[in-house]
Amino acid sequence: MPLGSKVWLNGRVLDQGAAHLDVADRGFTLGDGLFETLLWTGHEIRFVDDHLARLTQSAAALGLDMPFDVAALKAGLLALTADGGGQTAALRLTLTAGSGPRGLARQAMAIPTCLITIAPYAVPPGPVRLKSVSIRRNCGAPSARFKTVSYLENIMALEEAKALGGDDALLFGTSGYVACTASANIIIRLDEGALTPKQDDGALVGIVRGRLLARGLVTEAHVDPAMLGAASACAVTNALIGVRPVSEIDDRQLEVNEAWMRDLRNALGNA
Amino acid sequence: MPLGSKVWLNGRVLDQGAAHLDVADRGFTLGDGLFETLLWTGHEIRFVDDHLARLTQSAAALGLDMPFDVAALKAGLLALTADGGGQTAALRLTLTAGSGPRGLARQAMAIPTCLITIAPYAVPPGPVRLKSVSIRRNCGAPSARFKTVSYLENIMALEEAKALGGDDALLFGTSGYVACTASANIIIRLDEGALTPKQDDGALVGIVRGRLLARGLVTEAHVDPAMLGAASACAVTNALIGVRPVSEIDDRQLEVNEAWMRDLRNALGNA
Repeated sequence: MPLGSKVWLNGRVLDQGAAHLDVADRGFTLGDGLFETLLWTGHEIRFVDDHLARLTQSAAALGLDMPFDVAALKAGLLALTADGGGQTAALRLTLTAGSGPRGLARQAMAIPTCLITIAPYAVPPGPVRLKSVSIRRNCGAPSARFKTVSYLENIMALEEAKALGGDDALLFGTSGYVACTASANIIIRLDEGALTPKQDDGALVGIVRGRLLARGLVTEAHVDPAMLGAASACAVTNALIGVRPVSEIDDRQLEVNEAWMRDLRNALGNA
Repeated sequence: MPLGSKVWLNGRVLDQGAAHLDVADRGFTLGDGLFETLLWTGHEIRFVDDHLARLTQSAAALGLDMPFDVAALKAGLLALTADGGGQTAALRLTLTAGSGPRGLARQAMAIPTCLITIAPYAVPPGPVRLKSVSIRRNCGAPSARFKTVSYLENIMALEEAKALGGDDALLFGTSGYVACTASANIIIRLDEGALTPKQDDGALVGIVRGRLLARGLVTEAHVDPAMLGAASACAVTNALIGVRPVSEIDDRQLEVNEAWMRDLRNALGNA
């Protein structure tokens, strides 16, 4: 079976065409949910424990019930990789508040929806061109702190960047400092070391970002436009791409620092 | 048939249990869509043209295709009211970007999803108690300018307000001024007249708000906490509730000004 012909929905592996969502699912009606995107390397799910820990913590913070424990979710993720034949793939785990009556208020006893899908994935070749966009990350708000399915601002930021000729959007936070891109964290290289925006400035708590922080290769800081301008190199990170170099920020060209890329990637184990 | 046993999905009236969404619908996966909530009075859909005009404009601004024209959507809305037997009801029209492959980028030629549902509705009795919450409206961003299905911040704002003993949340914008509530616009009454927050401060372009502005009963202004404190009365407005009085903002009690309520409601025609 080709990869992606099956999905895992609320504990069951189903043919993609046989899996349906209720029209009253609050993920669909109100963006009331969370997701994780994970890399299947062809032989393992990278950082799977980090992802499931983040999902668990985010769900608790937002008051979303987790209908399956981490072991069951891991089994569900692995079940979909069986058709992969060693190719790399993107797994996506979505958790929503499930079906509910009209209105914003969540109901007690609602049964969450939990969906896992998989699709073939390969990291796009070459470096990334970033374009600054007008949309700001809402610092401190749930949409900036958690990986929620209320993701329209990321979509619109990407659309804006593409219209400007970029591959991804450079987003500032409402704090005025750099936050992240539409789908990745950002790292800049300065003489004094590598910096990544603080969570308080709207940076998502990225899994790869967290790994690099823990290894001491990157430090959190407020990143302002002057620092961007002073950076000798720049990279973006997320669970699928690992670390990718940035070749352009708006009209400024950047050299790709291959040695630095190698250091960052080595710190992740491989990728 | 009881009201709500049928839905209208992509042009067809279906039993609620027979209507399903694709697991790849971008409304579900990414909050990539818009919605309208409309009042069925028992004999008409209030302000239906205003709602469909707003949806059309919002869809154009966000680059979402409208798969049905206004006449077809109006017919779909009316089709669901047939079971109502003269009771008031809430209609909801949801438009999403439809199914798509993984990733943020929208595909050309995607087929949008258009869903209409209906549920019995009666305006809750009594006035509303508002509680200020920590979540800010992201002024100027799509989530503040349009009624999108990326609505998690509204949900969390309501949860925060309820935990504080309120019925609805008072949200400030990232501009620092009052914006709106989790599900309604706000109007304050001062000696010099009635004011409602500006769109630039994060106020949704509400249908009832727009009607009251057009009739000259309300003026747009930056509303700061001092003005809230000076207000002699306060009301909230949306398509379902029409106009409801506010009896409490945080720890401050407010008199319900019945004459003012009547003036506002009369300006809307009835309700």
